[in-house]
Amino acid sequence: MTVSLKIQESIEKSSWIRKMFEEGAKLKTEVGADNVYDFSLGNPDLEPPAEFYQALKQMSDSTASGMHGYMPNSGFADVRNSISEKVEKDHKIKLDGNSIVMTCGAAGGMNIILKTILDQGDEIIAIKPYFAEYGFYISNHQGSLVLVDSNADFSINIDAIEKAMTSKTKGIIINNPNNPTGKVYSEKDIDALCDLLKRKSTADKSIFLISDEPYREIVYDNIIVSPVLSKYKNTLVVNSYSKSLSLPGERIGYVAVNPDADNYSLLMAGLNLSNRILGFVNAPALMQRIVAKLNSAAVNVNIYKNRRDILMAGLKEAGYEFSVPDGAFYLFCKAPGGDDVDFVRHLQKFNILAVPGVGFGGPGYFRLAYCTSEKVIEKAIPKFKEAINSFSK
Amino acid sequence: MTVSLKIQESIEKSSWIRKMFEEGAKLKTEVGADNVYDFSLGNPDLEPPAEFYQALKQMSDSTASGMHGYMPNSGFADVRNSISEKVEKDHKIKLDGNSIVMTCGAAGGMNIILKTILDQGDEIIAIKPYFAEYGFYISNHQGSLVLVDSNADFSINIDAIEKAMTSKTKGIIINNPNNPTGKVYSEKDIDALCDLLKRKSTADKSIFLISDEPYREIVYDNIIVSPVLSKYKNTLVVNSYSKSLSLPGERIGYVAVNPDADNYSLLMAGLNLSNRILGFVNAPALMQRIVAKLNSAAVNVNIYKNRRDILMAGLKEAGYEFSVPDGAFYLFCKAPGGDDVDFVRHLQKFNILAVPGVGFGGPGYFRLAYCTSEKVIEKAIPKFKEAINSFSK
Repeated sequence: MTVSLKIQESIEKSSWIRKMFEEGAKLKTEVGADNVYDFSLGNPDLEPPAEFYQALKQMSDSTASGMHGYMPNSGFADVRNSISEKVEKDHKIKLDGNSIVMTCGAAGGMNIILKTILDQGDEIIAIKPYFAEYGFYISNHQGSLVLVDSNADFSINIDAIEKAMTSKTKGIIINNPNNPTGKVYSEKDIDALCDLLKRKSTADKSIFLISDEPYREIVYDNIIVSPVLSKYKNTLVVNSYSKSLSLPGERIGYVAVNPDADNYSLLMAGLNLSNRILGFVNAPALMQRIVAKLNSAAVNVNIYKNRRDILMAGLKEAGYEFSVPDGAFYLFCKAPGGDDVDFVRHLQKFNILAVPGVGFGGPGYFRLAYCTSEKVIEKAIPKFKEAINSFSK
Repeated sequence: MTVSLKIQESIEKSSWIRKMFEEGAKLKTEVGADNVYDFSLGNPDLEPPAEFYQALKQMSDSTASGMHGYMPNSGFADVRNSISEKVEKDHKIKLDGNSIVMTCGAAGGMNIILKTILDQGDEIIAIKPYFAEYGFYISNHQGSLVLVDSNADFSINIDAIEKAMTSKTKGIIINNPNNPTGKVYSEKDIDALCDLLKRKSTADKSIFLISDEPYREIVYDNIIVSPVLSKYKNTLVVNSYSKSLSLPGERIGYVAVNPDADNYSLLMAGLNLSNRILGFVNAPALMQRIVAKLNSAAVNVNIYKNRRDILMAGLKEAGYEFSVPDGAFYLFCKAPGGDDVDFVRHLQKFNILAVPGVGFGGPGYFRLAYCTSEKVIEKAIPKFKEAINSFSK
């Protein structure tokens, strides 16, 4: 007994990802990194926008007292007020900084929410295919993950959610836009989900809607991500600047809470305390001050859109089947033959790295992350063609 | 059922601190902040050293690719190598960057260690008086906190620790220099503790020594904090830059592991995964790069020393009893009359804010944090005198 059994199991569970990365790294050593078409990493490769560097420079020049000191666990009051203005616009709701908790990215936000609401054995529903880290986050706080199917186009299957609900259901996570499918849920779907939650809530049992929205700004074709926070009182929104400002290493994001949530004050106190005692203490001070100035800044989404379009055109021509992703930087493609692990191994022979859908609860598909240059995508297209042609034969 | 019962209990447990802060804030509103002598907050009030601002400026000017992007969950390789050089000097041990995990401050470091080693019901020993957050950190990961007495001078009571050890003991936390006493453990005490742990370890059971050292650089009178990491193989050291560089809001620190630890590779994999799935993902990127350049920088410790000396002289003359603090910025003073809560309330009548020792498992004492100017301390001395004189009468 040295390392906890639970963490050993978690290491084992995530070992397939490690193996995949190791195989990818080996491939890069063998044939040269430039000859590997790496679509495996959901790692934003765009640099932060100019506004970020301006704000960073401004903040770095300041030697004002307390610039890098402690602040309340939920964040600087003026920062929270600024963020609340963005949330008001995104979610068509009236709130102020008191309903915002600054967090160490979306992952930090998810963890403080789950710590705040979960008792041992409580269930959280998520929709397949899903961001697999949710399983770990829920397990961190003694909850159980309950997975439900989506519809064939990856839209929300309300009936499946209703059937999965039990007396232990404490909340449902939606990831909008979705990783790994790129799906953006329609306002109609969101409304139907909120109606279901209203219907299922009772006086002594609140069911939380947790909307994880780190890709809210990364959407295409004039799609607008529906407001959520205003549609159901027990909603918590999680967001981060990892994708919208390409700052994934800086760990800055926030949780926004509907001010009409049941036991609102207790909920906010819980989030604040969870932020403290889970060891975050607070979101990084300098980055808080910077993002507060950047409510309307974002990376150039057209770059991702152009990549998506090139990738889609090439894959379509080659004969792959997929739904058009509305947002994020993922394309979730049907695996020819139906066995995603098998096909991903086949792609590796053509120096293409992808992630099998089974890791996201979506077997039969593979995920392509287009966090890579147009040039790489263009060079990969003939390889994708070779791969599907040699596989189907 | 909205908020988890466990977090409600935690909110309740920490409510005395909130009440105290509320009373302090009320007092400041009533008599003016300048007329309140606030010794309650362990919040470093010195500004970061000039070297920090230079490094920040240099890093902020860089628009190099990936400056703010993801890196391995344990941190940038070059940063970890740089930190390992400091750890080598502090702990008289040979290691490299592979034995370092960059963390979101010491609180983040403590949480990833505890998540990695604890199974439900495992026990962690801490020495009274102790940093009360340990209780929350251990509870986060389903462990139990076991408190043991120190000696009268706050040195380590080896017998008390041995008596407290059970088959469930998974580790012991030392906080060196100690919050709230300012005690620095002698090398002899550290050696005796390590001998005990070696004696108690068996082939199938590793007992971890977790040395929490955020105040390592804040020591007085030429005291040197003993190396620990090299003295017992199953040691993990936690450190942060919150105090040494006055960056508590930036959440940057690290864990260093003895390369000879049992199941070392599994332990490192566990720390890496815990960093990821608890939601930290990684320590903030920009701050990692900055602290890597500042191995020999620190705030001017003489400022804290002068404050300590003025406070000690004044308290002694007034008739208070205390041990001379060797480090950190706390003085743990005997409460006249023996009831710390009672005496802290009495101090408030003289506009002095302090923290009752009972909150640290040290009833009969109160903690004074000298994170406040010499001027405030000097103005407070006559008030401390009035307080003790009016209380004893």
